[in-house]
Amino acid sequence: MPGMTRQGGQVWAHVGQAFRETAYDVVVVGAGRMGGACALFLRQLAPDVRLLLVERGGLPNEEGATILAPGVWTALDVPAGREREAAWVRRALAHDFGNVTFGPRPLLDLHAEEGEGRLPSADLLAQFPEAAGLFDPAALPFARVDLEAATYRPGAVALACGQRAVRAGADLLLNTHAHLTPGGVRLDRLTVTNTHQIVTHETHELRAGLVVVAMGADGPHAAEHELGLHTAHGRAYRQLPRLNTPSTDHTPTLRAGGLILRPQHGGFTLVPPIHHRDPHGYRPTGGRLTGVPVGVRRETLEDLLRLMAALPPLATEALEVGHSLADVPGAWLALPEGRADTPPCHQHLTEGVHLLLGGPLADPLGLAVAYDLAARVAGVGERPWA
Amino acid sequence: MPGMTRQGGQVWAHVGQAFRETAYDVVVVGAGRMGGACALFLRQLAPDVRLLLVERGGLPNEEGATILAPGVWTALDVPAGREREAAWVRRALAHDFGNVTFGPRPLLDLHAEEGEGRLPSADLLAQFPEAAGLFDPAALPFARVDLEAATYRPGAVALACGQRAVRAGADLLLNTHAHLTPGGVRLDRLTVTNTHQIVTHETHELRAGLVVVAMGADGPHAAEHELGLHTAHGRAYRQLPRLNTPSTDHTPTLRAGGLILRPQHGGFTLVPPIHHRDPHGYRPTGGRLTGVPVGVRRETLEDLLRLMAALPPLATEALEVGHSLADVPGAWLALPEGRADTPPCHQHLTEGVHLLLGGPLADPLGLAVAYDLAARVAGVGERPWA
Repeated sequence: MPGMTRQGGQVWAHVGQAFRETAYDVVVVGAGRMGGACALFLRQLAPDVRLLLVERGGLPNEEGATILAPGVWTALDVPAGREREAAWVRRALAHDFGNVTFGPRPLLDLHAEEGEGRLPSADLLAQFPEAAGLFDPAALPFARVDLEAATYRPGAVALACGQRAVRAGADLLLNTHAHLTPGGVRLDRLTVTNTHQIVTHETHELRAGLVVVAMGADGPHAAEHELGLHTAHGRAYRQLPRLNTPSTDHTPTLRAGGLILRPQHGGFTLVPPIHHRDPHGYRPTGGRLTGVPVGVRRETLEDLLRLMAALPPLATEALEVGHSLADVPGAWLALPEGRADTPPCHQHLTEGVHLLLGGPLADPLGLAVAYDLAARVAGVGERPWA
Repeated sequence: MPGMTRQGGQVWAHVGQAFRETAYDVVVVGAGRMGGACALFLRQLAPDVRLLLVERGGLPNEEGATILAPGVWTALDVPAGREREAAWVRRALAHDFGNVTFGPRPLLDLHAEEGEGRLPSADLLAQFPEAAGLFDPAALPFARVDLEAATYRPGAVALACGQRAVRAGADLLLNTHAHLTPGGVRLDRLTVTNTHQIVTHETHELRAGLVVVAMGADGPHAAEHELGLHTAHGRAYRQLPRLNTPSTDHTPTLRAGGLILRPQHGGFTLVPPIHHRDPHGYRPTGGRLTGVPVGVRRETLEDLLRLMAALPPLATEALEVGHSLADVPGAWLALPEGRADTPPCHQHLTEGVHLLLGGPLADPLGLAVAYDLAARVAGVGERPWA
């Protein structure tokens, strides 16, 4: 029996619950923050649209980019002309999704050279005493400060969006791999065997007036292999190693050389810069540090090594580089247009199919782009940030 | 018995020739154009230095980047301040290495936008009638012209350098894999079994006052894994697909969107742009064109697809994309400092070890950088281009 919510949609969590639907107005594939938000906004803007949200894993999905996203909102990353959208996202994160651990947390963007809007970083230590010892003011003497920056948990946003979409009437089908087909999707409902293998329990063909492909880094691949539609998008494998140097709620977020030190769980999550996309066919592999295999990929290791003098904690055993790839949290990140600096986007791929991508700038802009697609599908002209 | 040249060095081509040397003043590892030229120049500048040139394959090596290098000399690629060196390289290529198929061949650098020094490309068709049909002047209406550009065969340069180095007294050890050791090299002399496997026939330890690591893209890897010396260099896998559109000795070299159309063997060799290095652990793999597997990697395929409208022959069956990776000539290219726009370089890695790298700009500058290292080792202050 499908689970029921009082006035909301149905939820199918496992293959024991029979799925007998044959058609929806809209199917959103992927319940990460982009797909979840799009589903929620669409139900809010067009309550009569029959909507199914399909997710390969659970809610939240443990394998996508959302759960590992840094959750750092900063105006410094927002492209010119997108400031109002970013401000709307910030307000929404602070107020609209319940407890997503949203909190103002200034960001110090540290530099070796002088530049517009940069202050002497040594002077900032009086204002941000918790940053003492995290960076060397002699190596990074200048800093821009974003006092409006904030941190939050993108995984909690995705969870809230999915749950609220269901309460608003969306149906939710979990543990199901959706393949794109002309005019709809083919659904593989997945289950786990006694020997922990994931197998397809049953397959359904579903008609859909419109499909929103919100599968993160897998979206462009699915569009190409299942619909034959080539896109210019790329992907990169991003690892987020842990740095066990103490942090508090008052520790600012730091960034140097593109590397973000994001205070989290009493330490730091390191968010390395994305220099460019990874080539097709690349399989992530760990690197070597002074001959010893580690779990951090070589390119990330090089970024960390380069910054060790400027960020002394990186040169201590507080840095967790792991022994193998499995030791270091990492995920494939979509790169809109194959680049690391492009904002989230949606793209009309073909009649009845939209692609929705978050990527590196999803933290400050993702919700607005998900809203924009929902409003377009709903035929609504206004945008709340305009 | 080692082969002897009249007044020259010894040559060991196969394991049937006993190798009994125990020490050299200088060992150059790699007889591509960088190592071969360095060995030749060093013998010329310091005739008393006992020198061994070691090559993993034959002369020329069929597997390195040299044999597949485009062989396009153009001033357009030369960084500011390096013009004299490039001009010296051009003179040397034209006169000093025998028949390397050197020939002046103007280069048209085609663009969609106006820019400094760019002429209307349609007007250039009167001057270069052989370029008609190769590009669409409506899509690429502007062009810079390098009338001094020339083409040549880098493999022939490497062969001439190796042979002349031996005539000038260098010893040459072929089919030998050299491993870097403290104070010298360990030599694995390779042979081929009845079942076509390459195996180590015997191993020698050799002392060397100085080792020049000229192994191309493998050099930084060897320095790191054998000497524990981390470098900032990278590499990229470059494929050079064939375009069977007719060309003559009067057809100019074309470049558009970074893709070079290099007239060769009555058709064209396509030299795709290098956008960035490939990650550590990447293994090249073919892509797919409208669902069909091809030998050209996906990133190169995307470059070709993007340019099909502007370069109409790319959209015809004159383009050989192959069925699998083995069908498309390709090689790993060193990227000095991990970037695609840095000139060739040499680097003092540690006491007694120099790294010599060619990379994407080896065609106009490689010989000068090889000369510079030879002169430095020989203690010679003057440079012929100064």
